[in-house]
Amino acid sequence: MRLKDFQFLAEEFSAFLFARQPKGEPDSLYAPVRYINTLGGKHIRPILLLMAYNLWKDDLDKAMPAALAVEYFHNFSLMHDDIMDAAPLRRGNPSVHKVYGENSAILSGDAMLIQCFGLLLESGKEMGSAAHLCEVMCQAALEICEGQQLDMDFEKMDSPNESQYLEMIRKKTACLLGTSMHLGAILAGAEERDAHLLYTFGEKLGLGFQIQDDILDVFGDAILTGKQQGGDILQGKKNFLYVAAYAQLSGKARDAFVETYAMAGKQKDTEPVYTVYGELAIEKYASEVHRAYIREAVECLEEMVEVDTTQIRGLTHLLASRKH
Amino acid sequence: MRLKDFQFLAEEFSAFLFARQPKGEPDSLYAPVRYINTLGGKHIRPILLLMAYNLWKDDLDKAMPAALAVEYFHNFSLMHDDIMDAAPLRRGNPSVHKVYGENSAILSGDAMLIQCFGLLLESGKEMGSAAHLCEVMCQAALEICEGQQLDMDFEKMDSPNESQYLEMIRKKTACLLGTSMHLGAILAGAEERDAHLLYTFGEKLGLGFQIQDDILDVFGDAILTGKQQGGDILQGKKNFLYVAAYAQLSGKARDAFVETYAMAGKQKDTEPVYTVYGELAIEKYASEVHRAYIREAVECLEEMVEVDTTQIRGLTHLLASRKH
Repeated sequence: MRLKDFQFLAEEFSAFLFARQPKGEPDSLYAPVRYINTLGGKHIRPILLLMAYNLWKDDLDKAMPAALAVEYFHNFSLMHDDIMDAAPLRRGNPSVHKVYGENSAILSGDAMLIQCFGLLLESGKEMGSAAHLCEVMCQAALEICEGQQLDMDFEKMDSPNESQYLEMIRKKTACLLGTSMHLGAILAGAEERDAHLLYTFGEKLGLGFQIQDDILDVFGDAILTGKQQGGDILQGKKNFLYVAAYAQLSGKARDAFVETYAMAGKQKDTEPVYTVYGELAIEKYASEVHRAYIREAVECLEEMVEVDTTQIRGLTHLLASRKH
Repeated sequence: MRLKDFQFLAEEFSAFLFARQPKGEPDSLYAPVRYINTLGGKHIRPILLLMAYNLWKDDLDKAMPAALAVEYFHNFSLMHDDIMDAAPLRRGNPSVHKVYGENSAILSGDAMLIQCFGLLLESGKEMGSAAHLCEVMCQAALEICEGQQLDMDFEKMDSPNESQYLEMIRKKTACLLGTSMHLGAILAGAEERDAHLLYTFGEKLGLGFQIQDDILDVFGDAILTGKQQGGDILQGKKNFLYVAAYAQLSGKARDAFVETYAMAGKQKDTEPVYTVYGELAIEKYASEVHRAYIREAVECLEEMVEVDTTQIRGLTHLLASRKH
């Protein structure tokens, strides 16, 4: 069996997504769904699902509805999170609630969450795993809501500690990446052990990349990332670098850092924060944590000796060189 | 087999709901769920599910998670609809978004929708019908979203016609009542024919009671209904009576009525609307439509000859004498 590469899967999935754009009535419910589906994005989650499935099976069309299900779940969460975060932009375009209003973004988001389950049932029915897929999705979906709530709660705290922060990004971001692989494996009829190794691979990959995202936000080249350098600092967002610096400081130095971080946004001057990060070698520390997660992710694949995980291993390099 | 009555099922369900109040972390996600669960309500939907199940089976504890699932779906939709409708009160108490904020009402509503599927899977797994239950729920859930969207779209129109209005309340309200019975029947292993008759019974009952609700709003005794008489008129809400009057009028008389209805709220004077309704005998017409739906509902039960539907038939009287 020839394993399909990332690019091939991306093109196949994209064609399926467009072929299945919803056309129901009233159109006012489905237009926002079509809108967010066409804003781009790399379709990482459906591709992870298809890659996991492809380790055992070749008939990718059977897994396409499930792949669309995780993309729908992701887009549902973006629609609702963007309202909660009052985010005006999504993937460089006006966010759904800016174009269609908050009521539509709430209701069309609900419809996408419901369709996520409908699509899982569609793939699972033929393969006899419909209930199992929905169970796994339910548990993950609730964890992702918990992650979003933790994220909102954190913004009101001075100092989530490092393990609280990691638990938040595990639930909010990494869980859906792991779950995408998990669902692909279940659909392919993989054994529980392999399905769980793939879940853990996806989760560790997700943790690694979220930390990399945090690093790039602060230390990345704005031309390469397409985002303003230090955006998180200017917004006072408590990302991994903040949490790590906070943990390394104590007493008056810690109080001074909290004050400095809060002032950076108000005074539009990030320099004092960079000075602290430099003194504490935060970039080096965060990079080590990032690499440790990627290493742990790869170790999961090494335990899977009966299937060829080369394509999936390649993800760790492919994703490292692009924004996900 | 002795069939359980409404009161017994209401008490059993209420005990189960309280025993299963969610206690996860972060508590900020689950506190709004516990709050809306304790605001009361008659638990009509879970009781319909249990009554349908009880036509064939006696072990009600097996159906309790599914009964809780439809209550969770209903409460999810209330949480989100109350944001969309900017409704400050729910069952006489501050609505969820007034107590916890809109972000929490969005996210905790999402969590309830997800838990609805988890609870269906819990009941269905043991009985071997998990995927089937989820399929039926998915389809209904999407229709209910369509109904809410139609309702919002209608408020911007001069005149939904009568069949558009009925389609809206069928989707927004009646569908979940029918689906509750449908799910109970599937869970009990009923044949498709019976499951569909029960769906239609619930749907017709729902249509009938929504129209009764509209009648009571305009012509009901405020002391008995607990609501201000003519509340819909004052809010300019296009209920069944408005739609029926609009349909019977034409030309200048119709234009005058639209104007009169719009002015009633602004001038806090409902009398001119009551005059038009009196001339057109709208209350009598609406009551006939209401009774026709209840009759059609009962006819569905009459087609089910192998089970004892006495308790369910009693609902048509029981519900007629109380606010649902």
